[in-house]
Amino acid sequence: MSTFGTLFRVTTYGESHCASVGAIVDGCPPGLPLEPQDVQTQLSRRRPGQSNLTTPRDEKDLVQLQSGIEHGITLGTPIGLLVRNEDQRPHDYSETDLYPRPSHADWTYLEKYGVKASSGGGRSSARETIGRVAAGAIAERYLKLVHGIEIVAFVSSVGKVHLPSSVGSQASSEDDDSVEDILSSEFVQLLQTVTREQVDSHPTRCPHTETAERMTKRIIRAKEASDSIGGTVTCVIRGVPAGLGEPVFDKFEAKLAHAMLSIPATKAFEIGSGFRGTEAPGSRHNDAFFVKPDGSMGTKTNWSGGVQGGITNAEDIYFRVGFKSPATISQAQETAQYDGTPGTLAARGRHDPCVVPRAVPIVEAMASLVVMDQLLIQNARKATASLLPAITTLPPTMVKPASGQVNGKQ
Amino acid sequence: MSTFGTLFRVTTYGESHCASVGAIVDGCPPGLPLEPQDVQTQLSRRRPGQSNLTTPRDEKDLVQLQSGIEHGITLGTPIGLLVRNEDQRPHDYSETDLYPRPSHADWTYLEKYGVKASSGGGRSSARETIGRVAAGAIAERYLKLVHGIEIVAFVSSVGKVHLPSSVGSQASSEDDDSVEDILSSEFVQLLQTVTREQVDSHPTRCPHTETAERMTKRIIRAKEASDSIGGTVTCVIRGVPAGLGEPVFDKFEAKLAHAMLSIPATKAFEIGSGFRGTEAPGSRHNDAFFVKPDGSMGTKTNWSGGVQGGITNAEDIYFRVGFKSPATISQAQETAQYDGTPGTLAARGRHDPCVVPRAVPIVEAMASLVVMDQLLIQNARKATASLLPAITTLPPTMVKPASGQVNGKQ
Amino acid sequence: MSTFGTLFRVTTYGESHCASVGAIVDGCPPGLPLEPQDVQTQLSRRRPGQSNLTTPRDEKDLVQLQSGIEHGITLGTPIGLLVRNEDQRPHDYSETDLYPRPSHADWTYLEKYGVKASSGGGRSSARETIGRVAAGAIAERYLKLVHGIEIVAFVSSVGKVHLPSSVGSQASSEDDDSVEDILSSEFVQLLQTVTREQVDSHPTRCPHTETAERMTKRIIRAKEASDSIGGTVTCVIRGVPAGLGEPVFDKFEAKLAHAMLSIPATKAFEIGSGFRGTEAPGSRHNDAFFVKPDGSMGTKTNWSGGVQGGITNAEDIYFRVGFKSPATISQAQETAQYDGTPGTLAARGRHDPCVVPRAVPIVEAMASLVVMDQLLIQNARKATASLLPAITTLPPTMVKPASGQVNGKQ
Amino acid sequence: MSTFGTLFRVTTYGESHCASVGAIVDGCPPGLPLEPQDVQTQLSRRRPGQSNLTTPRDEKDLVQLQSGIEHGITLGTPIGLLVRNEDQRPHDYSETDLYPRPSHADWTYLEKYGVKASSGGGRSSARETIGRVAAGAIAERYLKLVHGIEIVAFVSSVGKVHLPSSVGSQASSEDDDSVEDILSSEFVQLLQTVTREQVDSHPTRCPHTETAERMTKRIIRAKEASDSIGGTVTCVIRGVPAGLGEPVFDKFEAKLAHAMLSIPATKAFEIGSGFRGTEAPGSRHNDAFFVKPDGSMGTKTNWSGGVQGGITNAEDIYFRVGFKSPATISQAQETAQYDGTPGTLAARGRHDPCVVPRAVPIVEAMASLVVMDQLLIQNARKATASLLPAITTLPPTMVKPASGQVNGKQ
Repeated sequence: MSTFGTLFRVTTYGESHCASVGAIVDGCPPGLPLEPQDVQTQLSRRRPGQSNLTTPRDEKDLVQLQSGIEHGITLGTPIGLLVRNEDQRPHDYSETDLYPRPSHADWTYLEKYGVKASSGGGRSSARETIGRVAAGAIAERYLKLVHGIEIVAFVSSVGKVHLPSSVGSQASSEDDDSVEDILSSEFVQLLQTVTREQVDSHPTRCPHTETAERMTKRIIRAKEASDSIGGTVTCVIRGVPAGLGEPVFDKFEAKLAHAMLSIPATKAFEIGSGFRGTEAPGSRHNDAFFVKPDGSMGTKTNWSGGVQGGITNAEDIYFRVGFKSPATISQAQETAQYDGTPGTLAARGRHDPCVVPRAVPIVEAMASLVVMDQLLIQNARKATASLLPAITTLPPTMVKPASGQVNGKQ
Repeated sequence: MSTFGTLFRVTTYGESHCASVGAIVDGCPPGLPLEPQDVQTQLSRRRPGQSNLTTPRDEKDLVQLQSGIEHGITLGTPIGLLVRNEDQRPHDYSETDLYPRPSHADWTYLEKYGVKASSGGGRSSARETIGRVAAGAIAERYLKLVHGIEIVAFVSSVGKVHLPSSVGSQASSEDDDSVEDILSSEFVQLLQTVTREQVDSHPTRCPHTETAERMTKRIIRAKEASDSIGGTVTCVIRGVPAGLGEPVFDKFEAKLAHAMLSIPATKAFEIGSGFRGTEAPGSRHNDAFFVKPDGSMGTKTNWSGGVQGGITNAEDIYFRVGFKSPATISQAQETAQYDGTPGTLAARGRHDPCVVPRAVPIVEAMASLVVMDQLLIQNARKATASLLPAITTLPPTMVKPASGQVNGKQ
Repeated sequence: MSTFGTLFRVTTYGESHCASVGAIVDGCPPGLPLEPQDVQTQLSRRRPGQSNLTTPRDEKDLVQLQSGIEHGITLGTPIGLLVRNEDQRPHDYSETDLYPRPSHADWTYLEKYGVKASSGGGRSSARETIGRVAAGAIAERYLKLVHGIEIVAFVSSVGKVHLPSSVGSQASSEDDDSVEDILSSEFVQLLQTVTREQVDSHPTRCPHTETAERMTKRIIRAKEASDSIGGTVTCVIRGVPAGLGEPVFDKFEAKLAHAMLSIPATKAFEIGSGFRGTEAPGSRHNDAFFVKPDGSMGTKTNWSGGVQGGITNAEDIYFRVGFKSPATISQAQETAQYDGTPGTLAARGRHDPCVVPRAVPIVEAMASLVVMDQLLIQNARKATASLLPAITTLPPTMVKPASGQVNGKQ
Repeated sequence: MSTFGTLFRVTTYGESHCASVGAIVDGCPPGLPLEPQDVQTQLSRRRPGQSNLTTPRDEKDLVQLQSGIEHGITLGTPIGLLVRNEDQRPHDYSETDLYPRPSHADWTYLEKYGVKASSGGGRSSARETIGRVAAGAIAERYLKLVHGIEIVAFVSSVGKVHLPSSVGSQASSEDDDSVEDILSSEFVQLLQTVTREQVDSHPTRCPHTETAERMTKRIIRAKEASDSIGGTVTCVIRGVPAGLGEPVFDKFEAKLAHAMLSIPATKAFEIGSGFRGTEAPGSRHNDAFFVKPDGSMGTKTNWSGGVQGGITNAEDIYFRVGFKSPATISQAQETAQYDGTPGTLAARGRHDPCVVPRAVPIVEAMASLVVMDQLLIQNARKATASLLPAITTLPPTMVKPASGQVNGKQ
């Protein structure tokens, strides 16, 4: 279905060539200062036509807030919002319509629904993500204002061009655990400091200039070959309080994985040390505790990526999302028509050769939605439990120390 | 919360040292033949004490079905089930209780709830997965019986010991796309044919004997060092009909990622070509259509992993899940107590040095739950839409061809 | 939250003076012929200004369908829809704003959210129901087209003016069960035959001309006294197949009660014989089975109101909903300001003296939503179970007779 | 499905003759002192065999708590619980099995599932309510301890024997509003003061001795006639804070109606003045505001029943639920067999002639579940909004007065 979230909930509608795409954002805390510009900023980062690396279509994507706000303050009631589709023309029929685009959603939508939009893969259109980005911007407004939470995503690879520091030095032997780094210290530092300004300073949204240049070349090579290329987006969330995430099925990372794999063209997700961390022994991978300079409990390393047992531990949350190369390419492809007739398909029009730069605000938006929803759920529990009498009958190791003693940032 | 699924729904309860762990499975189709043995088989595969690679505790894990079945036939009503905890003793206090175990859930549970079970990380106990495995076995019973769906998971790596065919040959240059394989043909063939019998023929549950031997050595090395090691589980689902998965937020792979990342100790998920596929250009990664020998539409390659646009396409679904090394190790660790006092912790008792062999039936169970739930939702849509009059007013490329023409296996 | 339904789901947004009110309808079966007029018809019946009995505001309430439909056929994707608010002016401050209107939502909204719309009770505005009516009209389109289901609501009382046949003859003695009717036979006949045309033939929407005249007088009396009056709406749903409703918490009547009590100003719900039926002994209240002329199984009486054990039995479903008198009256009321200062409030502007005539399409809409959602859920179960092998091991009384034998209409 | 609630959630399983009936209660606040006796007390009130007015079966209904509690303190994790069925014998086949019991769930269960339990209507068994009562008792423990909330239900009618004060004096004329009471002042006083001790002091659970005697006679008359009789239960919830209930679909009264109509044999629900209140004009029905002696804002009357605009207003919540006469009677009934053959059915065994005395704790339990769930949801909102900066840009009538000024009890 088209709804995401339990207490902070977004529902979206719309496909490529209908009247508008939009969303209803339900559960926004009342009393939040919110202006259209708070939403528009992220929408504009998602917009195509921002550089010669993306599709030259220029859609304005101006958001129209419909409800739930008065005098710039949220009322706690649903916020309706929509963005007009500038191109509402019915799709012109052409011979390419006889072909389901390989690795696109045309064929599976037809199998699923028995009918499909003339524009093809219906809701798999990138325009569907507009509603998510708008909703995420609203969530982020709260998270930033109240908790100082910072959510920054960036492009960590395009094709085989990787941010060099994103993987540690590879040990040569299966039998030797002693020398490897799980992630390089430069990369860990990048996660701790990277800002959106740094990310946006290059059209690729890779905050490492030399790599960004090579990524640009890789994208242009794909574009010139009428081809496309995939990549990865890494995201860090700084400042999330401890205690978010619902055991057992709605662990924080499970919701995050759900959110990320719901973005079009995603195929992979890893949190913290991820796949690479599976190679390290427990003695190296475990994050030991210590008291931080500010007096709060923390961990010396953070291979867990800010989540332990499905619950946030107030360390930075970081994860990586893999996006396949866009399916729509204008290069000729040998494939078959809906009726099975073999033939050659070459997509018309202009297409993004690489989506990861535009995916950056979408990843941030979905991350915001997960944090906000989990925060509300945990706030329900904490506020409700806080009214109970203090526990005096349990051994001290079973009860959280009273304030004044060491514990997590909350 | 402790519930997973929309129409096929499992809710679990229980932690390590309480009276029992169990589950309620709601939404099982009525009229399904079901015996306790159908559930017990998978529970026994999950059980510890199966080989010298796992913890020597010998819990019988005998399932007691409580309701929802009469004379070996499901009634369509909730199936209550439970497994007694053999060790219901209250946890003995010891000095180790003063320490939150690094990378375990002790500290985060206490932050979240303000109180925790004496046994430590509460619901993060591996025993919680008993309810999932039981529920998954019930779902699988239907999927196998009616659709012939086969779900087979296996261990694809332990530490740095990888099933050799699981990754293709690595191209050396960023600028050269021409020679690489995305996944090797041997690995693709393994996915198409591997059986549970093959998987269970070696204690590591790796269906490649030579690799399995090296994995064994790696696990024993961890055990002897009082350490632990992580790994990956790959799973293939064969025979799923086209059309499953709910755009946009509940894409098939999004639900699958959610399910897998809800398993304790998981940190990573990829479907189809996964992270590696992000490096390939669209012209190589796209799965072209063709008519299969049986007359149905299929794809020549399957880098999508059986899902396009969030919807299954009747090709094999395959994915990989990364498990970190177990956090509980008996090696001494420099860390801090709950109150911040630095010190050295060495866990007592016996622990799994590597969980991936036992994780195999859990991955299969969660996969079954996702398929079953999505199947029910899609059946609702199809059955409801099938009663509508045939569409005659749309262009033929917008409507699914009538039966007799080429389309997916359903 | 602002979402209703599991598989057929409506989410609404909007309050009185914002830009628009609207809804997203998710889960509509694909392939359904749907024109704006199908939705507009019910919206127009809900509209104020239809007669001198309702508020003279004339809002056009023209629906704008945004998505999910092409060439007049639904795509199975979410249908976005909105209706512009003609009066989007910020509410002018006045002294009446110092007072929470008695029995209105002003005070409770402020308690709940800490902030409220300038127009008062925010989402408790009657305009919120526009989204429901639109969604209900879409559901009804399917139900009528495929199952021939008819949903007809009508006004059964205004103040003390009751449709005479709606209650049976009252037995005088507690000790005498022998002579009473539970409902009169004329009323039962009305339920079996009443049409929307009959209902709309009088401005009160009471299909009994003489009573309708008395109701008119009662409403005019309230209007002239600057007062208001309540009433009841009875609704019948004819043609619902057997088997809908989900035991145990989502019984058909439980969902129906939920739906009806979510309509503004409702205070009461009863299905079948309702409160009056509680007075009858089982021997008189039980609906005995017999074979109908068409060969299907039915019940001789229908005091159950079409639902037994929470599941529909293919008999007519009928229920009654009580609406209190509108809280907003222009008569002076002794009450208190938000700060507790006692004073006199007289509402300005024009208000509906009685809402039940306009509530008729809202009741029908909510009924449609419940039937459609339950139908989808039951279709999921039936379609899934229908693929299982026939049951041969159970006693015949435990298994539904194969087709060809007597059973319910489905 | 078998789950109720969003953040405080109960899932039940079990039918009459299976191994056990039980529930999983998820979302209980951590740190709540809870002993088995807290649950057992309400279960024992629900138990049959308490007097000669109920069925003489003597089932012990001893609850076994499985998880989620240590040393008498809840952990915040799911609480599994079960009650063994003492009669687990497979149902003996008899000729009566050829007949679906009129107005029972036998026939509809078979229509819905295609298969049914040998014992008949499966989950419609009264034993299913054990899980609800246990869950409700846990919720109530919190509500009482922290908020001092009191939930008291009682029998307000049996057949035509009504608690005399439950309805006001009836005005004779449609045209005369001036003299009637909506509810009598004695009844309003009863609602404000009635205790469980008073309710339990008579086997009928009617807290008015003279009426209770007449109810007893009515029940005995039904029993002696091998017949049954219905009745109503009234429930009051005192001490609920203002602000609970989620506009628009999950209004407090909508959830309450849903909860009550999910109890077996219920046919009707009304809150506050209910159906009778629909007859009163707004000028008499509106609840005017005033400052209470304790300084908080309240209403002079409470015809709204503690809910306005779907949100609680801190006044007493009271409602009435109608239960039809039990369908199972041993009197002979002319009806038909499953295959349509006409015949005479006389139920064997012993049956409750009237369920309302035993329904009292079930109504209380479902009320507890609704309050607890809504409280958690509102606590999420309040706790989250409370961290926002104070609103300074809105007119004062749009913002809740700061503490120190008059407002609701919270």
